[in-house]
Amino acid sequence: MSDHHVYKKVEIVGSSKNSIEDAINNAVAECSKQIRNVEWFEVQETRGHVENGQVGHYQVVLKVGFRIENS
Amino acid sequence: MSDHHVYKKVEIVGSSKNSIEDAINNAVAECSKQIRNVEWFEVQETRGHVENGQVGHYQVVLKVGFRIENS
Amino acid sequence: MSDHHVYKKVEIVGSSKNSIEDAINNAVAECSKQIRNVEWFEVQETRGHVENGQVGHYQVVLKVGFRIENS
Amino acid sequence: MSDHHVYKKVEIVGSSKNSIEDAINNAVAECSKQIRNVEWFEVQETRGHVENGQVGHYQVVLKVGFRIENS
Amino acid sequence: MSDHHVYKKVEIVGSSKNSIEDAINNAVAECSKQIRNVEWFEVQETRGHVENGQVGHYQVVLKVGFRIENS
Amino acid sequence: MSDHHVYKKVEIVGSSKNSIEDAINNAVAECSKQIRNVEWFEVQETRGHVENGQVGHYQVVLKVGFRIENS
Amino acid sequence: MSDHHVYKKVEIVGSSKNSIEDAINNAVAECSKQIRNVEWFEVQETRGHVENGQVGHYQVVLKVGFRIENS
Amino acid sequence: MSDHHVYKKVEIVGSSKNSIEDAINNAVAECSKQIRNVEWFEVQETRGHVENGQVGHYQVVLKVGFRIENS
Amino acid sequence: MSDHHVYKKVEIVGSSKNSIEDAINNAVAECSKQIRNVEWFEVQETRGHVENGQVGHYQVVLKVGFRIENS
Amino acid sequence: MSDHHVYKKVEIVGSSKNSIEDAINNAVAECSKQIRNVEWFEVQETRGHVENGQVGHYQVVLKVGFRIENS
Amino acid sequence: MSDHHVYKKVEIVGSSKNSIEDAINNAVAECSKQIRNVEWFEVQETRGHVENGQVGHYQVVLKVGFRIENS
Amino acid sequence: MSDHHVYKKVEIVGSSKNSIEDAINNAVAECSKQIRNVEWFEVQETRGHVENGQVGHYQVVLKVGFRIENS
Repeated sequence: MSDHHVYKKVEIVGSSKNSIEDAINNAVAECSKQIRNVEWFEVQETRGHVENGQVGHYQVVLKVGFRIENS
Repeated sequence: MSDHHVYKKVEIVGSSKNSIEDAINNAVAECSKQIRNVEWFEVQETRGHVENGQVGHYQVVLKVGFRIENS
Repeated sequence: MSDHHVYKKVEIVGSSKNSIEDAINNAVAECSKQIRNVEWFEVQETRGHVENGQVGHYQVVLKVGFRIENS
Repeated sequence: MSDHHVYKKVEIVGSSKNSIEDAINNAVAECSKQIRNVEWFEVQETRGHVENGQVGHYQVVLKVGFRIENS
Repeated sequence: MSDHHVYKKVEIVGSSKNSIEDAINNAVAECSKQIRNVEWFEVQETRGHVENGQVGHYQVVLKVGFRIENS
Repeated sequence: MSDHHVYKKVEIVGSSKNSIEDAINNAVAECSKQIRNVEWFEVQETRGHVENGQVGHYQVVLKVGFRIENS
Repeated sequence: MSDHHVYKKVEIVGSSKNSIEDAINNAVAECSKQIRNVEWFEVQETRGHVENGQVGHYQVVLKVGFRIENS
Repeated sequence: MSDHHVYKKVEIVGSSKNSIEDAINNAVAECSKQIRNVEWFEVQETRGHVENGQVGHYQVVLKVGFRIENS
Repeated sequence: MSDHHVYKKVEIVGSSKNSIEDAINNAVAECSKQIRNVEWFEVQETRGHVENGQVGHYQVVLKVGFRIENS
Repeated sequence: MSDHHVYKKVEIVGSSKNSIEDAINNAVAECSKQIRNVEWFEVQETRGHVENGQVGHYQVVLKVGFRIENS
Repeated sequence: MSDHHVYKKVEIVGSSKNSIEDAINNAVAECSKQIRNVEWFEVQETRGHVENGQVGHYQVVLKVGFRIENS
Repeated sequence: MSDHHVYKKVEIVGSSKNSIEDAINNAVAECSKQIRNVEWFEVQETRGHVENGQVGHYQVVLKVGFRIENS
């Protein structure tokens, strides 16, 4: 077994009508459907749409890190 | 009708005793009272006051973007 | 009495299974156990661990500012 | 007459189907309709929409500086 | 149908002998051959090669954003 | 009375032949002629003109924050 | 043959018990197993774990650039 | 005697009604009451309060560096 | 012959009434009159003057890189 | 036992005549003499002194993170 | 006569026992002894040495811009 | 003798097949052939070429500082 690992980071944007945490979770969940070994996330930007003078959607840009299999 | 739009961004600080989302919404709502066509926001900074060893207020610095009328 | 104050900022990482606000509060509360006169915080980074395709912990890196006694 | 001036900077987003320069000019022209003494601009961000695998619009975020009258 | 979307951003470098806009378009077009639902781009860096005292190639580093299918 | 406030930040450039503090004060004073409730400033950039091998003017770019009335 | 190329950049984290160079090489080697035409890297962050008061692992976050085939 | 030294940096905010230099000196002096071997400072931010349309206090955020004893 | 090269980067500002590319080319051409082996450029800032409500000049701040002779 | 931890980060500068890794290790070792539970480091800056046309010392500025006891 | 100019920027560090403005002036004056057509400066960093618990020297890192002759 | 010094910083890129330290040393040595009184360096970027799935060259971008003679 290797004594070191290699990780990859991808950049994902999650959105939610409800909260910043919800937008993060939507991005992490979608990402985990396609990628194994997702281990951490880092918030890059928080933004959103305004509709009728209120927040319509929160949009959170994340880097998501996962271990490369067999590395 | 023009085939391009011009937008303006203003910098606003919202605050709330309750949550980051609430502070964002307070800023967006105040802004929309004075400006039409508010379309999006971008979080610049998140900070706050501490009172008696607990968060007293969340303060969120936002850029808020709106379309200039007739542009 | 002095007509000016001196403040110090320390860098703290709070975590929570529940929310970003909770992670901030955990850091502020821990900090206030050890330091008097804590007055404000500034979020530096928001990140977290992923477990089983969901957010396991939010981790929030803060600067926390307090007034130096007798300054 | 004062021996010093005061300037203000506002943040504007211009767009164009044609070029980055055109998007800058659209923003500067719109701005000059509403504000006198516009003197300079600084590009903050260049971005755009994609439509059918091609650039649909260039969007350029500018700071635009003007001298405050009678300052 | 979901009430929220998830997007991904990839980092691409386009080049052109002619112009910055051309370099952006080359990157966007190449990207769109391989990825569906490309919706926006953000310029990260503009640079290039010099040949015989003149610009040989413009190189533009872009983030390109697309919606993840079925998200 | 509201339990939260909303603030706005504007970007101003002050100048002075004498000192950086003087340039800040010129900007703050001009700003306060036009806006009520100015509460704080943040220096963004310090620069200036050179004339005959000496500093001719200091120019200081500030963000100036004020509370929005009735917020 | 095209007179321009398109490149892609991916973000990788290499680690090593020995040195920063070793961590870079581990990331580059792993990346080259999966991707052809890897041409350059850019270090984004250098960090690591501490074990028993000594560096346990160096972790280096890299962007790795490669030419897209047939571009 | 060791052929290398280890230094620590702390983040301090000084204030003054008079000048930026005075705010720096107040921070450095307070810091030196509590810490030996203070060797250098680095300005991080310059900001302040406005009172009655004039600068009330300058606030300067510094990093202050000192050598760790016996290192 | 050496198995490594050393490069130097200088910071230049080009201007043009016509386009950003033209401003870059003017800077690169001027630089190449005085320096041999100019190999690449990196755009740092794009800005300009406004005259009569239109862009008067584009100004582009570049870093220009060249190989040091005999290195 | 708590289900969350609080960490603190301190900023340290290590130096070495030999290598960057050695400067990191000197800082981490000194830090671990005084602080328990040191878990990670993040390189902030790499710099150094030049003596007689050669590197005299490498100086590496680190943030070092440790868990607060009983948190 | 050319309808455009080319400028160069150099990075200089001025110091003074007295004030930040003095350190800037020392750098600008030294620079102007060697270079013609110096037109502007931009402060990059402000730092200094501490001696006996007081500021010993202010050090200001500047970019200084000048027009290239005959450009 | 003057009670203050003026320094200049130049930007240099060193390269090496072997290590980051070697690339720094190559740049510092080349620089010192042409400039007297070189006193310090600051690493700006670390990057490199990949050849056959391995690091071919490390490239380190440095600022190198030296005292201006007779300042």
